Amino acid sequence: MRTRLIRPLDLAGTALFALQGGATAAAAGLDVFGVLVIAFVTAVGGGIVRDVLLGATPPAVFSDLAYPVAAFGGGLVVVLVYRLVRAVPPEVLLPLDAAALALFAVVGAAKAVDHGMSPLLAALLGAVSGTGGGVIRDVMLGRVPLILRSDVYAVAALAGAAVVAVGLRYGRRRALVLAAGFVVCFLVRMLAVWQGWNLPRVAG
Amino acid sequence: MRTRLIRPLDLAGTALFALQGGATAAAAGLDVFGVLVIAFVTAVGGGIVRDVLLGATPPAVFSDLAYPVAAFGGGLVVVLVYRLVRAVPPEVLLPLDAAALALFAVVGAAKAVDHGMSPLLAALLGAVSGTGGGVIRDVMLGRVPLILRSDVYAVAALAGAAVVAVGLRYGRRRALVLAAGFVVCFLVRMLAVWQGWNLPRVAG
Amino acid sequence: MRTRLIRPLDLAGTALFALQGGATAAAAGLDVFGVLVIAFVTAVGGGIVRDVLLGATPPAVFSDLAYPVAAFGGGLVVVLVYRLVRAVPPEVLLPLDAAALALFAVVGAAKAVDHGMSPLLAALLGAVSGTGGGVIRDVMLGRVPLILRSDVYAVAALAGAAVVAVGLRYGRRRALVLAAGFVVCFLVRMLAVWQGWNLPRVAG
Repeated sequence: MRTRLIRPLDLAGTALFALQGGATAAAAGLDVFGVLVIAFVTAVGGGIVRDVLLGATPPAVFSDLAYPVAAFGGGLVVVLVYRLVRAVPPEVLLPLDAAALALFAVVGAAKAVDHGMSPLLAALLGAVSGTGGGVIRDVMLGRVPLILRSDVYAVAALAGAAVVAVGLRYGRRRALVLAAGFVVCFLVRMLAVWQGWNLPRVAG
Repeated sequence: MRTRLIRPLDLAGTALFALQGGATAAAAGLDVFGVLVIAFVTAVGGGIVRDVLLGATPPAVFSDLAYPVAAFGGGLVVVLVYRLVRAVPPEVLLPLDAAALALFAVVGAAKAVDHGMSPLLAALLGAVSGTGGGVIRDVMLGRVPLILRSDVYAVAALAGAAVVAVGLRYGRRRALVLAAGFVVCFLVRMLAVWQGWNLPRVAG
Repeated sequence: MRTRLIRPLDLAGTALFALQGGATAAAAGLDVFGVLVIAFVTAVGGGIVRDVLLGATPPAVFSDLAYPVAAFGGGLVVVLVYRLVRAVPPEVLLPLDAAALALFAVVGAAKAVDHGMSPLLAALLGAVSGTGGGVIRDVMLGRVPLILRSDVYAVAALAGAAVVAVGLRYGRRRALVLAAGFVVCFLVRMLAVWQGWNLPRVAG
């Protein structure tokens, strides 16, 4: 993965997360405005939380107009053609979602390393970048966040982000490290979906 | 609207939002402390989120003691005379609330423009200033935020904030632009209430 | 209390809050990952919110690796020996929790004073430091935050933090002021538990 490819891919991931967030909001019975708001926070919430924690304000999504446009674009697609969006089969949606998650986690971890964070915290902030938007979406919809309830989702983000955090720390080539982190996150997530992996509950 | 009038009006809006937030919390069965907390976050939450996103920390409400005093004052009124507060008829409350919303949205958008944000983001941050406190209130009370469920509320804030963001960008006189934004937000909100406007749901 | 004692005590409080947060998450049926996440945010959420509001980013817990380690350590204990954790009697847990609350409130207020905040806001930020993690925990678990529903918990944090904020403002010896704030918070909380104090509801 060439690093100059990251921005277009990141924008595609933003639009995709917005699409999903908007579809979830529409299914919850929200109106047009609510769908757009939830689409927006799902798509850019993780990156905003990451940047606020890094002290890198205003958040990056606010200084590059393409990000809010991609986020609202994804929400608008839901508003206009919800029936089509709802009909997308999971076999298409899940790999796309896993790819967007991997991209966000990897890019977020790299940004944290660039800001001088230790590998442990860079990995955490990468996972926050990938999953934070979904947490805000679920809290606003009055639900326990999906990542707390099911599947190996945040764990995949954490694994990919950790590869990046450690790899960059030890001076490996940036493009290679990002690609490796992406593949790890994507594979862990897809294997978890395919095999029905779930972590055990703690309380009997 | 003279710009030197903004601070007293802004304080009045803060106290009013605190009053409403506190009344909502009291109706939800919270104790004295809970009512004060919810009154406080309803009144100043939107401005705090705006300032954190702008990187303008500590938030403005923390450096001007009059704001927390106004917010707690509004909450204290609820604690002391909840019966009276509850008896205020909507014909009085709704225009006051629309005025406070308009003021917060307009002031918030102007602040974002002053910090160099683009018009799109300044309009968004103005809407966040006006509605963010209510979102935090609803999330803490375990409810789907009101702005996601009903009425043309956030849309009115967004419209007023957009007038300010665009007007200031193109160099119009500040007092005029703020007044225009205020009137637009107030009118959209009051028309929506009066006519029972609601945006359509997305999912059938 | 010698000020050099603060860091080890603060770490102990972090681990304890993580233990409690994790136990709450386990009781709510979350899986291993969810328990670790909730343990983490319960333990460090209050300090992170305080630092974001102070503009002191990245938050302190991110620059001292011992804090995330203590937080995850507490969560891991829950995952490994939840049965033992659940069996700890309240007579042991409540005083430990009150001590951790007092410590967080006192240290948070002192930090806010050091950043030049007025006594009112330093007291508020101290209370946020002590109770913010629990609020985030409850919101993520879909509950109205405990501090809004019951007991004199946040009020105790506020009282201790106020002692520190005022004491430091008027130039009293730091160690003395912190110790006094700690004792006030701890006693208020323990008396409230022991006597079954609760603030009255506002609405009949």
